[in-house]
Amino acid sequence: MARARDIDDLPKNDANYTALTPLWFLERAALVHPSRLSVVHGSRRYNWLQTYQRCRRLASALSNRSIGAGDTVAIIAPNIPAIYEAHFGVPMAGAVLNCVNIRLNAQTISFLLGHSSSAVVMVDQEFFPLAEEALNILAEKGRGQYKPPLLIVIGDESCDPEALKYALSKGAIEYEKFLETGNPEYAWKPPEDEWQSIALGYTSGTTSSPKGVVLSHRGAYVMSLSVGLAWGMNDGAIYLWTLPMFHCNGWCYTWALAAFCGTSICLRQVTAKAVYSAIAKHKVTHFCAAPVVLNTIVNAPKEDTILPLPHVVHAMTAGAAPPPSVLYAMSQKGFRVTHTYGLSETYGPSTVCAWKPEWDQLPPEAQARMNARQGVRYIALEGLDVVNTQTMQPVPCDGKTVGEIVMRGNAVMKGYLKNPKANEEAFANGWFHSGDLGVKHPDGYIEVKDRSKDIIISGGENISSVEIENTLYQHPAVLEASVVARADERWGESPCAFVALKVKIDKDKEREMGEDIMKFCKARMPAYWVPKSVVFGELPKTATGKIQKNLLRAKAKEMGPVKISKL
Amino acid sequence: MARARDIDDLPKNDANYTALTPLWFLERAALVHPSRLSVVHGSRRYNWLQTYQRCRRLASALSNRSIGAGDTVAIIAPNIPAIYEAHFGVPMAGAVLNCVNIRLNAQTISFLLGHSSSAVVMVDQEFFPLAEEALNILAEKGRGQYKPPLLIVIGDESCDPEALKYALSKGAIEYEKFLETGNPEYAWKPPEDEWQSIALGYTSGTTSSPKGVVLSHRGAYVMSLSVGLAWGMNDGAIYLWTLPMFHCNGWCYTWALAAFCGTSICLRQVTAKAVYSAIAKHKVTHFCAAPVVLNTIVNAPKEDTILPLPHVVHAMTAGAAPPPSVLYAMSQKGFRVTHTYGLSETYGPSTVCAWKPEWDQLPPEAQARMNARQGVRYIALEGLDVVNTQTMQPVPCDGKTVGEIVMRGNAVMKGYLKNPKANEEAFANGWFHSGDLGVKHPDGYIEVKDRSKDIIISGGENISSVEIENTLYQHPAVLEASVVARADERWGESPCAFVALKVKIDKDKEREMGEDIMKFCKARMPAYWVPKSVVFGELPKTATGKIQKNLLRAKAKEMGPVKISKL
Repeated sequence: MARARDIDDLPKNDANYTALTPLWFLERAALVHPSRLSVVHGSRRYNWLQTYQRCRRLASALSNRSIGAGDTVAIIAPNIPAIYEAHFGVPMAGAVLNCVNIRLNAQTISFLLGHSSSAVVMVDQEFFPLAEEALNILAEKGRGQYKPPLLIVIGDESCDPEALKYALSKGAIEYEKFLETGNPEYAWKPPEDEWQSIALGYTSGTTSSPKGVVLSHRGAYVMSLSVGLAWGMNDGAIYLWTLPMFHCNGWCYTWALAAFCGTSICLRQVTAKAVYSAIAKHKVTHFCAAPVVLNTIVNAPKEDTILPLPHVVHAMTAGAAPPPSVLYAMSQKGFRVTHTYGLSETYGPSTVCAWKPEWDQLPPEAQARMNARQGVRYIALEGLDVVNTQTMQPVPCDGKTVGEIVMRGNAVMKGYLKNPKANEEAFANGWFHSGDLGVKHPDGYIEVKDRSKDIIISGGENISSVEIENTLYQHPAVLEASVVARADERWGESPCAFVALKVKIDKDKEREMGEDIMKFCKARMPAYWVPKSVVFGELPKTATGKIQKNLLRAKAKEMGPVKISKL
Repeated sequence: MARARDIDDLPKNDANYTALTPLWFLERAALVHPSRLSVVHGSRRYNWLQTYQRCRRLASALSNRSIGAGDTVAIIAPNIPAIYEAHFGVPMAGAVLNCVNIRLNAQTISFLLGHSSSAVVMVDQEFFPLAEEALNILAEKGRGQYKPPLLIVIGDESCDPEALKYALSKGAIEYEKFLETGNPEYAWKPPEDEWQSIALGYTSGTTSSPKGVVLSHRGAYVMSLSVGLAWGMNDGAIYLWTLPMFHCNGWCYTWALAAFCGTSICLRQVTAKAVYSAIAKHKVTHFCAAPVVLNTIVNAPKEDTILPLPHVVHAMTAGAAPPPSVLYAMSQKGFRVTHTYGLSETYGPSTVCAWKPEWDQLPPEAQARMNARQGVRYIALEGLDVVNTQTMQPVPCDGKTVGEIVMRGNAVMKGYLKNPKANEEAFANGWFHSGDLGVKHPDGYIEVKDRSKDIIISGGENISSVEIENTLYQHPAVLEASVVARADERWGESPCAFVALKVKIDKDKEREMGEDIMKFCKARMPAYWVPKSVVFGELPKTATGKIQKNLLRAKAKEMGPVKISKL
């Protein structure tokens, strides 16, 4: 018998191959569950048929304005139906969606809009003045070169009608009016190539300019299915939008909810009370949130809660590792917390601390400790490792040896827009370099020890700020804590803790409280880890609730070095 | 602002792109749940680490024998661990897996092995004589050209040890011994191109020879995730192998179970008692079965059951629409039945009668009627329609107008092996033509009205009426023969032969002649192909001399179902 090379001699054709894109999910949701709720925002309720029609209208209206392949459409909006619709309508027109963080200032937004060459700007009425300012800056810089984008303002009945009027007076088109110019039966097509870009999102860029992370249709497709599997999401999930959709496209849940024919409950403002009340009213089954939001939920005053929960609620968290104490408190209240980790560059979280049934037998604190790790790769992330950055060799699975967390696979971005140097660095040696430091445990689970820039080097020893923070969270008076390096005359650097307390205390009690906290730490960690400085006050946060360590670092710098005499 | 075509100018690289293949699922399962049960067969129990190592051994051992890209490895086995392992081990070596239906006769198997140029034949000890006979036929036909394949026999402690001894005496290598020659750390690689073939499976062949359906790594990947979503399968499912793995690769559940880190419970023989006892013993959560198996489960004597069920058990069925009465009886017993439909050409079932919560309010019979429809597309099947075959226009959604069911998308096969003519027909006009006739209901759900005319589905197996006819025509007394499906209480359908004899015989000799014809068939085809009814008389014909099967079908219907007692 001859070898049958014939076995691979069967070409792709229109019947057996099509581009992978999450747009198929929406078409399917509208077919299978046309009358099921798709998006709820206050008293506005859409079903999947309506959402599909609205998205097709949006695509058609954009297309009528010659917006298509290669174009970028920016949106500046909180969690409202329009930003959900843009996740489908914009790529259905062949264009790329650029979600802008609403907490950025006009200066930064002007950079984003310019760098992405956004041909359309969709903006929620509340943020119209911000967009206007950003565009003014851009116009000024661009001088004769500046071509104003198509400006669309999204009205919201729950907001001040004057703001909408103002936007309209400035020539913006109202979103609903714009949709009316589109065809609800618009014959969208999948991209010719699934590698085509679907979305663009800018990282916060603490050091230089923000970098534009570009994602593909293919990646969005496989990640949408992956993010469901990560916590057993099923058909008909009721998903609460505590996580901003502008953050990594809502960790791909924007698209995933169409795959699962689930319902999106929008939230303009995230408060513990709003979360609990949505759980009660809409029977929310799932939500995602930064650890700081979990903290808020855990520490909410009793009258804002609806405890005990009427049903199991799955909470997914990522970002800085949630302190075990917070994980424990959540589970005590009946939330099932799934801990994940990732970056904008990996479509949001792409590793999960997959729960093992055997952990059910552990004492609660041990469970929380297990679950505070960043875990294993999502299905769509085909490679995850911790490596020695010098040799690119994997570190041993000893839970101790620190290396850089690297990823590869379909959950990794296409690259940074117009930034070959950053791409070269990010993709060196066939891996995506997260810039995060971690260890591998004997069970293969990874644990983030720190951002490489968050490591504190004291007397030549590496100190993980995360571990100190985890201890601080266990102190009964501590609400939030963040630890950064502070210059130290004797040790080079030493840990400096910024702490927000659950209950405000008088200025003259701070010294006493600081000493109590240090004592608490001393009993629980090596002496050289104990913060040499404790500063009280509210912690600065990003739009997504991430504590802004760069600002705290600046503050620590202002404070000057810890003096030798002071020790 | 210029258009930013840059947005698509980001090439694939080793870090952000890899072939989609279900092999990744296995690697992940072994990492995340190394000690969780993967495959159980009687007293043999493997965990995911062991299964991964055994699959790597298999890949390595094959690779050592120069089996790789472009080669085909055939397996003839019931549901035992080795056939599960072959689904990963064979493609890990770069080769293509050809699962052979164990109910075929040696003649047909010899055709399959020859047509696929199988370089390796893995065979369960019970089926060794069958494989031997098939290879003898092949050797005879091939004469000097014949190169014997590598022959591997799979022992099973639960079977007669003499059968294994016999195979070894004939020079076959024992499977476990073969694995020992492989490296458990074998560094497998994903295929260079995800379009590469992963599996080959032969259809029963309606007209002429069986056709070899070729599937890709890409298709197997997306379908594995899809088949989980179709019935809300989650991490840690306990899956009972009532469905043969050689049927469309177990409808992709072979691969899917690795994605979901579930457990496979093997069954060599499917009986109602074995199913119930596995549910009790292993806490089975899911199984797939042809309607005939559901029927057996429903009608099992009380002492064989464990009713009421200790937990919800999901049953997926496909093939001929299960009678509403069976669906109803299943649900009454606590099974949750998911009804699906598909073909070998679509990786097994690729449409699902997606349950709508509003159906919960319907009376049970109406529920069963709703659920007896074939439904909507799986996530991975991007196109499904019912069209007028003349115009290729979709039929109206009226539940009445009959058209051909057509499919397209990533769930459609690469094509038939070495069969350009069949491919041209199958893929005409950019759709895959199922050959099945159906309608579209007002809710968009499709319903099969008539299986492709020549196919009889008996006990979940496709039987080609034309092949039976060909045999009948070989009987010395037979002038003309035509075979259609007749309802069968036990098997759903069974073949009913209409025969015109060369010489007229007396009415009282018909019974004897009928038995003689059945005996004649039994010697020449699998037992389940043998007509259960033989009717004598002239055959109705069209003006052009074509036998009018529609009239024979009507006649068979008049006769009512074959009674169980008659068997």
